[in-house]
Amino acid sequence: MRKRVVRQKLIKKHLKRKPGLPPGSLIRQNDNSQAESRLSYFLYNQESIEEKHIHSLSELPKKTKEKLFWMNVVGLNDIELLRDIGKIFNLHPLLLEDIINTDQRPKFDDFENRISLMLRLYDSENNEMSIEGEQITLVMGEGFVISFLEKPTDIFEPVFERLRKTSSGVRSHRADYLLYVLADLIIDHYFVFIENLGVRIEDLEDSLFTESNESNLEKIHSMKTELLSFRRYVFPLREAISQIQRSNSTLIEPETQRFWTDAYDHVIRIIDLLENYRELNTSLRDIYLSGLSIKMNRIMQLLTIISTIFIPLTFIVGVYGMNFHNMPELEWRYGYYMIWCLMSLIVIGMLLFFKRKKWL
Amino acid sequence: MRKRVVRQKLIKKHLKRKPGLPPGSLIRQNDNSQAESRLSYFLYNQESIEEKHIHSLSELPKKTKEKLFWMNVVGLNDIELLRDIGKIFNLHPLLLEDIINTDQRPKFDDFENRISLMLRLYDSENNEMSIEGEQITLVMGEGFVISFLEKPTDIFEPVFERLRKTSSGVRSHRADYLLYVLADLIIDHYFVFIENLGVRIEDLEDSLFTESNESNLEKIHSMKTELLSFRRYVFPLREAISQIQRSNSTLIEPETQRFWTDAYDHVIRIIDLLENYRELNTSLRDIYLSGLSIKMNRIMQLLTIISTIFIPLTFIVGVYGMNFHNMPELEWRYGYYMIWCLMSLIVIGMLLFFKRKKWL
Amino acid sequence: MRKRVVRQKLIKKHLKRKPGLPPGSLIRQNDNSQAESRLSYFLYNQESIEEKHIHSLSELPKKTKEKLFWMNVVGLNDIELLRDIGKIFNLHPLLLEDIINTDQRPKFDDFENRISLMLRLYDSENNEMSIEGEQITLVMGEGFVISFLEKPTDIFEPVFERLRKTSSGVRSHRADYLLYVLADLIIDHYFVFIENLGVRIEDLEDSLFTESNESNLEKIHSMKTELLSFRRYVFPLREAISQIQRSNSTLIEPETQRFWTDAYDHVIRIIDLLENYRELNTSLRDIYLSGLSIKMNRIMQLLTIISTIFIPLTFIVGVYGMNFHNMPELEWRYGYYMIWCLMSLIVIGMLLFFKRKKWL
Amino acid sequence: MRKRVVRQKLIKKHLKRKPGLPPGSLIRQNDNSQAESRLSYFLYNQESIEEKHIHSLSELPKKTKEKLFWMNVVGLNDIELLRDIGKIFNLHPLLLEDIINTDQRPKFDDFENRISLMLRLYDSENNEMSIEGEQITLVMGEGFVISFLEKPTDIFEPVFERLRKTSSGVRSHRADYLLYVLADLIIDHYFVFIENLGVRIEDLEDSLFTESNESNLEKIHSMKTELLSFRRYVFPLREAISQIQRSNSTLIEPETQRFWTDAYDHVIRIIDLLENYRELNTSLRDIYLSGLSIKMNRIMQLLTIISTIFIPLTFIVGVYGMNFHNMPELEWRYGYYMIWCLMSLIVIGMLLFFKRKKWL
Amino acid sequence: MRKRVVRQKLIKKHLKRKPGLPPGSLIRQNDNSQAESRLSYFLYNQESIEEKHIHSLSELPKKTKEKLFWMNVVGLNDIELLRDIGKIFNLHPLLLEDIINTDQRPKFDDFENRISLMLRLYDSENNEMSIEGEQITLVMGEGFVISFLEKPTDIFEPVFERLRKTSSGVRSHRADYLLYVLADLIIDHYFVFIENLGVRIEDLEDSLFTESNESNLEKIHSMKTELLSFRRYVFPLREAISQIQRSNSTLIEPETQRFWTDAYDHVIRIIDLLENYRELNTSLRDIYLSGLSIKMNRIMQLLTIISTIFIPLTFIVGVYGMNFHNMPELEWRYGYYMIWCLMSLIVIGMLLFFKRKKWL
Repeated sequence: MRKRVVRQKLIKKHLKRKPGLPPGSLIRQNDNSQAESRLSYFLYNQESIEEKHIHSLSELPKKTKEKLFWMNVVGLNDIELLRDIGKIFNLHPLLLEDIINTDQRPKFDDFENRISLMLRLYDSENNEMSIEGEQITLVMGEGFVISFLEKPTDIFEPVFERLRKTSSGVRSHRADYLLYVLADLIIDHYFVFIENLGVRIEDLEDSLFTESNESNLEKIHSMKTELLSFRRYVFPLREAISQIQRSNSTLIEPETQRFWTDAYDHVIRIIDLLENYRELNTSLRDIYLSGLSIKMNRIMQLLTIISTIFIPLTFIVGVYGMNFHNMPELEWRYGYYMIWCLMSLIVIGMLLFFKRKKWL
Repeated sequence: MRKRVVRQKLIKKHLKRKPGLPPGSLIRQNDNSQAESRLSYFLYNQESIEEKHIHSLSELPKKTKEKLFWMNVVGLNDIELLRDIGKIFNLHPLLLEDIINTDQRPKFDDFENRISLMLRLYDSENNEMSIEGEQITLVMGEGFVISFLEKPTDIFEPVFERLRKTSSGVRSHRADYLLYVLADLIIDHYFVFIENLGVRIEDLEDSLFTESNESNLEKIHSMKTELLSFRRYVFPLREAISQIQRSNSTLIEPETQRFWTDAYDHVIRIIDLLENYRELNTSLRDIYLSGLSIKMNRIMQLLTIISTIFIPLTFIVGVYGMNFHNMPELEWRYGYYMIWCLMSLIVIGMLLFFKRKKWL
Repeated sequence: MRKRVVRQKLIKKHLKRKPGLPPGSLIRQNDNSQAESRLSYFLYNQESIEEKHIHSLSELPKKTKEKLFWMNVVGLNDIELLRDIGKIFNLHPLLLEDIINTDQRPKFDDFENRISLMLRLYDSENNEMSIEGEQITLVMGEGFVISFLEKPTDIFEPVFERLRKTSSGVRSHRADYLLYVLADLIIDHYFVFIENLGVRIEDLEDSLFTESNESNLEKIHSMKTELLSFRRYVFPLREAISQIQRSNSTLIEPETQRFWTDAYDHVIRIIDLLENYRELNTSLRDIYLSGLSIKMNRIMQLLTIISTIFIPLTFIVGVYGMNFHNMPELEWRYGYYMIWCLMSLIVIGMLLFFKRKKWL
Repeated sequence: MRKRVVRQKLIKKHLKRKPGLPPGSLIRQNDNSQAESRLSYFLYNQESIEEKHIHSLSELPKKTKEKLFWMNVVGLNDIELLRDIGKIFNLHPLLLEDIINTDQRPKFDDFENRISLMLRLYDSENNEMSIEGEQITLVMGEGFVISFLEKPTDIFEPVFERLRKTSSGVRSHRADYLLYVLADLIIDHYFVFIENLGVRIEDLEDSLFTESNESNLEKIHSMKTELLSFRRYVFPLREAISQIQRSNSTLIEPETQRFWTDAYDHVIRIIDLLENYRELNTSLRDIYLSGLSIKMNRIMQLLTIISTIFIPLTFIVGVYGMNFHNMPELEWRYGYYMIWCLMSLIVIGMLLFFKRKKWL
Repeated sequence: MRKRVVRQKLIKKHLKRKPGLPPGSLIRQNDNSQAESRLSYFLYNQESIEEKHIHSLSELPKKTKEKLFWMNVVGLNDIELLRDIGKIFNLHPLLLEDIINTDQRPKFDDFENRISLMLRLYDSENNEMSIEGEQITLVMGEGFVISFLEKPTDIFEPVFERLRKTSSGVRSHRADYLLYVLADLIIDHYFVFIENLGVRIEDLEDSLFTESNESNLEKIHSMKTELLSFRRYVFPLREAISQIQRSNSTLIEPETQRFWTDAYDHVIRIIDLLENYRELNTSLRDIYLSGLSIKMNRIMQLLTIISTIFIPLTFIVGVYGMNFHNMPELEWRYGYYMIWCLMSLIVIGMLLFFKRKKWL
């Protein structure tokens, strides 16, 4: 009778490392996952660009002051590789630990000469992605950016495209602008996610006001779980981007400030919409509940109409089913027909009564 | 049986540009809209005023230090035109992008020598306008103001009138006063909007306390959606105007500060009213729900009264419909009449009982 | 069946001037009101006092440094008069506009050398006053105080009395002390108002726990509307008085600071009580709703008792109303009486069952 | 049927003085109370202690620099006495007014050289005390402490005991330590109060989960009223003690700061518990409401079971009570018995059906 | 019929000492507990480590500058012992009092040269532990750390292991790092606790959406009580760790700051999850309540279907049970069969009606 709704699960393993391990311990998360990490890099300046997929860190190009270096690391299971990257690029062990523990809150960190920004990617078109999104860590140092992704995704494709064009703005800016471009791209995807949510809320509204489907409650609850989960990853982002703006790291150029202000503005808009959707979700629950009450009222109206009409009639026919010897009506010639008339009058009266009450 | 209520839709496309585009990209919003942008300007000082509708930017007058220039741009589909305006008046690409993406939060921005104020217009008398209002961007520089509107509206008419009068205060003040006058006008319209909401709340109250119309729930929910949407555009305005007050831009004269304080005060009053209306909306929902319960109680009372009276009577007549050979009452001469008396007594007793319970 | 409750209306015209008018425009509020403004003044110092009702501003006494001047203006419809007062006492046009637009939030303003304090008067004993209270504006300058009232009230009578006494503290202090005395008087009246609310809450509680009157819901909702309206005028007062305390206006003497602290404390107490009353109001609504459920339970209990007792009995008498030729019981000599015994046993059993369930 | 619960009344006279009286007016609160104020004092230093009950202020000892003086004033009806104390100890008129108006928020005040701390005493063991507690004002100056109590209480007894011991820490500290000891004692009593509340919540929980007593709603509401009232007097205490800590009064020794921090910590813990209890109270209300629903479900189940079993049976016996001339079954030899078999089968089927539904 | 759920009790004795005792009084908490305190210590530096269980403080090693000393005190009933530890390690009496009163909020204190951190331990695997957790106090001075535990636990085992390894990072850091390691370990256990909560929420969800078990309400309420209790001990931890970060105590090395930031981050994540779980808990309650309504609807549907079908039929057979002399139908040859046909049609009609209503 009840159709099962695929409820979203909020709960997953939040603690990846066992209590008591030293800080900075790197523990592989998915032991049964064989996927290797995939590495690719861009080395570019205004004039030229080099793009390459590599299989080991030994293939890394030499660092030069003139060119910007962006490495994209997809898949976080190869602990050794990550440790090597940490050594080469001089990353703090706690930062590496955070990169691997993929349930971090979005945050901005400034480890002398290295800044990192952690975000969640919500890629609605990638069905492989869970409701919790995937963690993306962007690390930047003088002249380089490294992006760490949990799973393959084609979300960075537009940036690749822009990079390949000589005229692109990205080619002429410094590393912090690339950092902004990547963060902005991820934030833009939140709008897609939240729009999907909006469509689902509208569908639910329509469904709630027309039919009273019991599975709607499960949908409403599932949506609330998603909203809570999403909020947990978006709210801290406001603080993180605000910290970038206030940061006095020399890695952030003054001229990119304006762009971070724009990104901050986008996050605020998403949070506003999110809060509205949470309120609407509560409202939907109330509508569902009153839908149950309305249905109950209708059921009881039906029962009451039927009972109120037939119970008195049954009484009347019962009267003339009595076996008293002396019941004059029984012998009247048209007694039977008169009873039918009487009962018809009662029924008509009742129907008029219910009509006036607007029950019919 | 249920009348459909036109529910307001909260959800629209919040992201106008595709994820991954460079910042400052200008994308036409409504591709199927052929409407051209309409341009008009005022060039005035205390002594003289020139008012003109123009068709291209080449008709723009020369800028002079002695006169203030106010250009009104209606319709945001002509990307080329907007880009040209941006070049002529030296507007930041991110500002232009915001002007076109008409789902911005109200905000104040200070781009060296250019300040911009984004607001939403709620013009209750203009039926073309959606529940979300329309975005109005006011941009000001030394000696000029440009206002960007999504759609034609006659809301600025009173300001036009005042400008045409030589004695008007607007004529004798500088550009920041004109900015204030336009912002104040838009905020004044919020009072009209919120008053309409108030009237609708009162109507709903009356309706809820007199009849139990099922469509009321839909009206309450729709109003909540509107309140949420309106709040999303009014709350940030408080911050925006407060930023103008604290701004140390040389474009804002100290003597207009007092007027911005007044505008700030108006926004606070609107927010107060809005919050009260939100609480009343919740209250209305509770009244609706208890209306359902009250109705249920009444239905059940009716059923109980009918059942409680007739079920015992039916039992009694059933007794004397039994076919036992030895049932002395059946042979009594007035048995039948005595049964009627007994049943009448029971009915009267029941009626008195329900009377005392105040069910009748 | 339902008694109408006089619900308080929250909504009134919040915007008095038409959108688009220049700031500082003075528009008469109630066009159909013929009431003239009434003027009276006190001119006093420690030694002497002069008290006079005047009909035009030409009767004003000359300003002297030695004496304090307090003018009381009742009725705000005479725009010309107010404009003249504005000119004589050098009041800012925006202040005059606020005086006339009587839906202002309580606020403190400091217009160089003139400070103003706007409050709402809740005079519970004056039936003419609406639920929204009346706006009182207190304006103070060097050596004078002017109070603007919407309607006649005898609330200032105790201050008049104190002024007339030579020994009074008011006579020996400066203008800011008079300002405090008037504000304190108005705040004191809030306690009366809130005490009345408290009494009504207690009455409602008693009513809710003893009888289930449907009009109670309307009373609860009406009280919530009042609480919301009252809160809108009391919350900002906290900020206003706090601004007086922090103000560095030379008009506020350091020795009156202590008194303003006291007034601030009173406002905080009122806000505390108000918030408690709001919570209790919500609680009352819950009690009302569960009252409906309790009533429903009782109705259904009655129906169930009656049905559960009589339905089986009716079945039994139906059995012996059957016309089978071969039904031995019918021919038993005491069959009829045995059935009565059986039915009595069933009824007694049922009654015991309901007794144990505590339904009877 | 319903047992009355003694509901706590939140509302009492909050305004003791009539509006319009000058600030600092001392008005006797309980006109019908004849109780005199009772005075007693301690005069002590490390070496010696003098303890005395006195009847008039003329019996006060001379102030000396070497000894600390603590006077305990019980009963606040003797206005003249309080005024005299105010003169002798140089107390501010507004402070005296607050001492007498016993509905003050807890607060700390610093009147040059006199500091005062107002608290509420909740003495659970003293039945005379109302739910609102009693106001205790502690006033301290150089070398003396005065405590003002509304009613006699033996709460200070442990401090008396400690004072009488030569070895006591109180004897060796200065006046501010005595102030702390008294405040700490009063705060400790809050724990007793809140523990009592906790026990009552547990009892209510047990009651709600086992039986559905209608008076529970009244108990829940009464407890909420108490929690609100208690909160009103405990929340401001946090601020008051924090002000003592930040105070730069020379009367507070740096070495007692640590103790105030401890007291602050206690207040925070009480507030935490209080907030938890408020949430639990709300939770109890929900449990009560669902208790009503569960009961309703049970009632309706019973009605439905009885109806569903007997209504079809009654129909069947009705069929064979019809008087058609041609009804073959009636003449069957075992027709009557077969009907009984049929009806038994139906009943058994129904019972199995309800069994499977877990209704039985 | 109702299975009892073991509800968690929120309430325990919050005040361990009697009101009126001097601050710093040490009172044994559990008088009937004979358990002695158990002492053990580690004395270590990079090169060597000494580990010992001792029975009295006389066995303590001499303090040396080269080695770090960590003493673990399990069991807080031996007041004398604690007083001696206080003397030897120069601990403030108020700190000792807090160690013994095991209902403290988590807090950080800086008593000149001694810093203390109080936390709650939630050890899910230790069944002896109550829902409230156990208090752990970490005290640190120059060169030593003392940890005070209420009950034996093997939670510190991983740290013991790491200490015993020469290569361990703990061995090469100073005392504040050991403090961090212990705090981090305790915080890590919160993740385990909160994960268990998450699993229970999912189980409850599944249960609520499939069956309507009345004991679920008790489970939901019990979980809320636990969440409230847990929150009371986790929220203040955020502040405590933030105070460590801002502390300017010389005991905290600058290089451990980064680790505290990491711990702070963990606490924030736990708080986020906790708040989400609280919202989900509320949501579960709503689902439970609507489960009751859904069940009620089903019950009433069944009753209504049965009644609506059989009441009219019973009326019809009643009609032909009447004893009128002149009832032509009774004499029709196939009257009886026609009635059966009529009744079958009615039943089929009704069934179709309910089918269309989706009740069947």
